[in-house]
Amino acid sequence: MDSKRAEAFSDGVFAIAITLLVLDLAVPARDRLAGRSLIRALGAEWPSYFAYLVSFAVIGIIWVNHHGLCGLVKRADRLVLFANLFLLLTVSVIPFPTRLLAEYLTASGDSHVAAAIYSAGMLAMSIAFSLLFLAISRDARLLHVPLDRATIQRTWRRFSVGGVFYLITIGLSFVSAVLTLVVHALLAAYYCFDQLASARS
Amino acid sequence: MDSKRAEAFSDGVFAIAITLLVLDLAVPARDRLAGRSLIRALGAEWPSYFAYLVSFAVIGIIWVNHHGLCGLVKRADRLVLFANLFLLLTVSVIPFPTRLLAEYLTASGDSHVAAAIYSAGMLAMSIAFSLLFLAISRDARLLHVPLDRATIQRTWRRFSVGGVFYLITIGLSFVSAVLTLVVHALLAAYYCFDQLASARS
Amino acid sequence: MDSKRAEAFSDGVFAIAITLLVLDLAVPARDRLAGRSLIRALGAEWPSYFAYLVSFAVIGIIWVNHHGLCGLVKRADRLVLFANLFLLLTVSVIPFPTRLLAEYLTASGDSHVAAAIYSAGMLAMSIAFSLLFLAISRDARLLHVPLDRATIQRTWRRFSVGGVFYLITIGLSFVSAVLTLVVHALLAAYYCFDQLASARS
Amino acid sequence: MDSKRAEAFSDGVFAIAITLLVLDLAVPARDRLAGRSLIRALGAEWPSYFAYLVSFAVIGIIWVNHHGLCGLVKRADRLVLFANLFLLLTVSVIPFPTRLLAEYLTASGDSHVAAAIYSAGMLAMSIAFSLLFLAISRDARLLHVPLDRATIQRTWRRFSVGGVFYLITIGLSFVSAVLTLVVHALLAAYYCFDQLASARS
Repeated sequence: MDSKRAEAFSDGVFAIAITLLVLDLAVPARDRLAGRSLIRALGAEWPSYFAYLVSFAVIGIIWVNHHGLCGLVKRADRLVLFANLFLLLTVSVIPFPTRLLAEYLTASGDSHVAAAIYSAGMLAMSIAFSLLFLAISRDARLLHVPLDRATIQRTWRRFSVGGVFYLITIGLSFVSAVLTLVVHALLAAYYCFDQLASARS
Repeated sequence: MDSKRAEAFSDGVFAIAITLLVLDLAVPARDRLAGRSLIRALGAEWPSYFAYLVSFAVIGIIWVNHHGLCGLVKRADRLVLFANLFLLLTVSVIPFPTRLLAEYLTASGDSHVAAAIYSAGMLAMSIAFSLLFLAISRDARLLHVPLDRATIQRTWRRFSVGGVFYLITIGLSFVSAVLTLVVHALLAAYYCFDQLASARS
Repeated sequence: MDSKRAEAFSDGVFAIAITLLVLDLAVPARDRLAGRSLIRALGAEWPSYFAYLVSFAVIGIIWVNHHGLCGLVKRADRLVLFANLFLLLTVSVIPFPTRLLAEYLTASGDSHVAAAIYSAGMLAMSIAFSLLFLAISRDARLLHVPLDRATIQRTWRRFSVGGVFYLITIGLSFVSAVLTLVVHALLAAYYCFDQLASARS
Repeated sequence: MDSKRAEAFSDGVFAIAITLLVLDLAVPARDRLAGRSLIRALGAEWPSYFAYLVSFAVIGIIWVNHHGLCGLVKRADRLVLFANLFLLLTVSVIPFPTRLLAEYLTASGDSHVAAAIYSAGMLAMSIAFSLLFLAISRDARLLHVPLDRATIQRTWRRFSVGGVFYLITIGLSFVSAVLTLVVHALLAAYYCFDQLASARS
């Protein structure tokens, strides 16, 4: 089975999930400003913009990684397709925890739960990505060029470190929701620069 | 007429339908929690998550099957295009019965109607898929390799069994809506593992 | 300039417009049933389902025609790209008049205005499609095979008849909105069967 | 890394952003007409239609330019992918300032803030497009045919002029929001005709 169509379908899901995020940037209704200026009303929505930017960056980075992973694949069997579907499930659900965290980021008690759910969503995505790599790397006939054992081990180590970081953000959620979102932003920036550096070398 | 663009269009519709499902995972507004904790308010939305997961799995499986079916096709004539459009109609409408069932799953009387409409949507999709297979298999010139009679018969038998199952879920809806959704989840899991098994052999 | 990417972009817009229609199939909220059964509440929404089906069919047919038209094109220059963008504007706006007509189909006075706007939307789409054909057929170097004068004239005659029909539906809107939507459904069915017949010959 | 998939993903984001704009063309609810006729209620929504058309045109033109730019690229490295992601961020966010400007275009004081945010969004998009060009033109190995110094300088001059115009619209926002939107429409029309002229020569 050719992997081209699975990529096109995945690109569609990534593109839609990343673009649907904008629907949750709410415009305050004119008759609900209640005497506030628009600029203040928009300012009060900063958790929406922050969560939007972090989720946009995370989906974008996952897409770049998915792009890189698919470049290795010659043929996708059904196990790969279903592993890919599971990844797409975790990606396409992201607008939900994003909306949730934007709504509750500044709520005192409930902010922790919202941040923990957001972090769990990121962890699920990272696990799904690892499973897709597992499905692809298990059979050399699916690949253009077989991966050597050292590359596979190095990749797994990276995935494990990423997974541990996301686990830590779940714990961190119960300390501070805002800090948790900052850490997710930093993780995204790290992955972004790390890839630019590895691309340069 | 080349079948590549019909696939790209279909992939677009599948990708959008499967991703739009997330719009119906509602975030409870902060000022409507009415003293409940967020975790309880989210817990009360379990029918949404359950219906979301089942519909995501169903659309995903249909996509894998569509992918497989299109792999046989060399050329799509207009009858195939319209049969495909009918399938896309049944796929792209799925967010509606999903939303309906999520809203009414725990309503005493109306849950049966909602579950029956959901099941009827699944039946329509299964019929549309059979019609697409019929449109494709009717003319050997549309295919890369002509299908032998035994394969066509075996495929029809599978489609018939699937159709009968979906008919049964319509009846089951009037017994229990929750049970009906469980059966749809089991059917999706069955199709998923069945395909993985047939892919392995 | 290669026409492949313009097709991919167009397919995306068609796929999204046709799938976004489902967002306007409203699920009645449980606490607003006001003693009615769900089945009655859904039944009262028949204008939504009717408008949904007609608009789905219209976008689907336009896509099939667009698919056919693009099959002739070898190279798209910027005039073709902008003519195509104008067609995409008229296609991607369709969810709006569809929603409008669904809401006002059974309103006594305002139904006429809603139906006239819906019909004007269809007319705009038909004009945009003619302009795209004009942009493509004006320069033989854009085509795989140059079109002979007779084919161009026959195509224009078809477009003119279609345009006149849509003009008539605008007038008809002020007689009966429901009848207007029925005529749009019949026009869609006619185009559909006409294409199947011409494909067979 | 092949640039085909980055184009497909970009096309998806462009197509979705341009089509999502329609969701903000609101249909006035029947029970909120408050004695007004539908035609008057729709007429009062003219800022929505105006902002919709301008944003549609802007995204469409950016897509045509993106299409042109990608035609030069043979290989996309990660820096190009991330520059492209940044452009997609500025494109996919456009429905938000569009909605904002539509809501506040006729509000006395707040219209200026809304128009300035809309103009800033356009400026961000123009900067992101320049950065993408920078990322592409920095390394001749990424291109099918290396760009000569004169072409690069001419392109930069164009980008700078465009950027200055968008800066001016931010200032203009504090004079008149409606005038600002008119200028954005004129800029879009200018770019459109300019491209048609340069395509003809």
